[in-house]
Amino acid sequence: MKIETIDFFYLSMPEILDIGDGSQDALLVRIRAGNYEGWGECEASPLVSIASLVCPMSHSACKPVQDSVLGQNLESVEDIARIGNLVRANSLDLLQADHTLSGIDIALWDLLGKKMELPIYNLLGYPRAYSKIPYASQLFGDTPQETFQKAQQVRRQGYRATKFGWGPFGKGTVKMDEDQVHAAREGLGKDGILMIDAGTVWVDDVGAASLRLRVLQDCQVLWLEEPFVSGALKSYKKLSTLSGSVKLAGGEGCHNYYMAQQMIDYAGIGFIQIDTGRAGGITTSKQIADYAHANGVTYVNHTFTTHLALSASLQPYAGLKEDNLCEYPVEPKSLAVELTPTKILPDSNGQIHLPDAPGLGIMPDLHTIRKYLVDVEIKAKGRVLYRTPTL
Amino acid sequence: MKIETIDFFYLSMPEILDIGDGSQDALLVRIRAGNYEGWGECEASPLVSIASLVCPMSHSACKPVQDSVLGQNLESVEDIARIGNLVRANSLDLLQADHTLSGIDIALWDLLGKKMELPIYNLLGYPRAYSKIPYASQLFGDTPQETFQKAQQVRRQGYRATKFGWGPFGKGTVKMDEDQVHAAREGLGKDGILMIDAGTVWVDDVGAASLRLRVLQDCQVLWLEEPFVSGALKSYKKLSTLSGSVKLAGGEGCHNYYMAQQMIDYAGIGFIQIDTGRAGGITTSKQIADYAHANGVTYVNHTFTTHLALSASLQPYAGLKEDNLCEYPVEPKSLAVELTPTKILPDSNGQIHLPDAPGLGIMPDLHTIRKYLVDVEIKAKGRVLYRTPTL
Repeated sequence: MKIETIDFFYLSMPEILDIGDGSQDALLVRIRAGNYEGWGECEASPLVSIASLVCPMSHSACKPVQDSVLGQNLESVEDIARIGNLVRANSLDLLQADHTLSGIDIALWDLLGKKMELPIYNLLGYPRAYSKIPYASQLFGDTPQETFQKAQQVRRQGYRATKFGWGPFGKGTVKMDEDQVHAAREGLGKDGILMIDAGTVWVDDVGAASLRLRVLQDCQVLWLEEPFVSGALKSYKKLSTLSGSVKLAGGEGCHNYYMAQQMIDYAGIGFIQIDTGRAGGITTSKQIADYAHANGVTYVNHTFTTHLALSASLQPYAGLKEDNLCEYPVEPKSLAVELTPTKILPDSNGQIHLPDAPGLGIMPDLHTIRKYLVDVEIKAKGRVLYRTPTL
Repeated sequence: MKIETIDFFYLSMPEILDIGDGSQDALLVRIRAGNYEGWGECEASPLVSIASLVCPMSHSACKPVQDSVLGQNLESVEDIARIGNLVRANSLDLLQADHTLSGIDIALWDLLGKKMELPIYNLLGYPRAYSKIPYASQLFGDTPQETFQKAQQVRRQGYRATKFGWGPFGKGTVKMDEDQVHAAREGLGKDGILMIDAGTVWVDDVGAASLRLRVLQDCQVLWLEEPFVSGALKSYKKLSTLSGSVKLAGGEGCHNYYMAQQMIDYAGIGFIQIDTGRAGGITTSKQIADYAHANGVTYVNHTFTTHLALSASLQPYAGLKEDNLCEYPVEPKSLAVELTPTKILPDSNGQIHLPDAPGLGIMPDLHTIRKYLVDVEIKAKGRVLYRTPTL
């Protein structure tokens, strides 16, 4: 079958708050081929990814992403990899292309899974999907007291693990951070698994990061996430030699296979966190999971948004039994909640399971999300290049 | 003074050919502050960079680039670095932002140079700009005969160095590539400096690349450029242990400091090639030049377009006497030629010199380029986010 249409839908909350909450908008991708339809999501900046889908060609290695996808044959898993390679070659100089490809790749897997009547993890070669421990992923409270209450709340909800990140962390004194981490540990109780996410706040400053290691060790924090930006491998490596019982985690900024490979090879991390909606989709994420597994680094998803994105982000490591943690969004905005009627919910043991259903096993609810649809029109060179399609 | 306006102008040839020629369009940047005006250029995909300038905020780390620039104070070199850091933090999840920042950063340096009445290389701390040997950078001919003639022509024009790249190279048999490289060497003569650019054609396949090493060695090729994509550090490293007299060159795909640092640290390259219009502008490129210099890797610009971009790409290593090669566009499209009335032309010794003039020392000719201006309009959320400004 041939890929007939690619539709991008920009969804947004009526108001976007200036906080580290990525669930406030979404870029939903629909691909049609034969009699099938697949869905995916690109992370971050919907308008820019839309522009990269439809922009005029600049030269042979800077083409709009759609040129490498529309009209392509899609019969097998190999076709998805081939289309990804085409995008990367034909849009080599188009920086945004990796994010744009990510949602397309996810939709292609969903479509192929529906056609072959198999969950994506089966198509990836995993005989089964192991359950994961969802960790409640949330922002720090503005005060230690608020963080304490948030930690207590997720504990009451039955989560065995939680992560606090962003907010004030790393932006004030060491003492303020210490109070925050202690509050998180106290609220969660001593048996809960606790992670801390610094949100790249120290950029590449090992000194600033190392001042926080003591409290992380004292509070039995499993990992310190993104002390630095994704590329600062030497800073990661140096901090990893100082961090003792606290492992480093990072990788959500990786937008291709090589960036993740380099973090695994050179950064001394214990956990590689991949956002399927950024790294190049399920294809690239599975490659990264394989490489991490072969090199003793634990794979974890990065997901802060919808359950469609959650399913996409779980598929690449569904069959890795030991890699059993899963970032689980617990405070998404209504857009992300309402996007999918089907949810991936913790069972009575607090474990989550991928749907045993074709493709992603999660569908967007078109009727409900219509109210979040953003009207976009892009005109250039006398032509309308993009206009929001009808949902 | 405060940054008052940022204007992006998308310029394009009437027809864009499907060839590896990046001079077919341009994104010109104009920034105004106080009574001054600075100009810059972003490499690659104008429409996408425009979208990243003006897109709606997605969350606190995914803001439109202009939000971190407009209204900022600009008095010193440190302000430019500060603004760049703001963009990288506030647009962390906006992949295209590095390309967009690049043109803005260049324009800020140009503006500050004009205000302080100094060339940018002086502001960067270089007491003087050393002359460079321009190498004629061109595409392979479709046939060895055509490549031979192109090499003869640049030799007649007085160039001591030339580089052939893209076109059919690497896409056919080893024998076809051998014929092409021999033709280039014969046309150039035995004393000319010859470089070959594989344009990432082997992605990360060391085997395919190594089959071409013999002819490169036999033809005294100085460097093999981009056998692989920028991130494929292990493939670079492995090939570098096999390539003997032929050095590896790469880096044009680097869109931040860390990517270049990693190539220098791990890829075994002899030359790091930086496009100031992609790497984050002059600020980041100078950082890379310093790091390369300290680590025994030669810095070379990547420029295939206008003389405004050429000036911007020469400034970061103007004061490095030993790093004396310069990529010099010899077959740009009329848009790139006409953009600047002032040109950086080889002297009677075949050397080029940066203008001894404030800022970039190169100004766009607004009257001439008006005919290349593309009408763009972007609407979202009920607002016009961008409309091509008047030149």
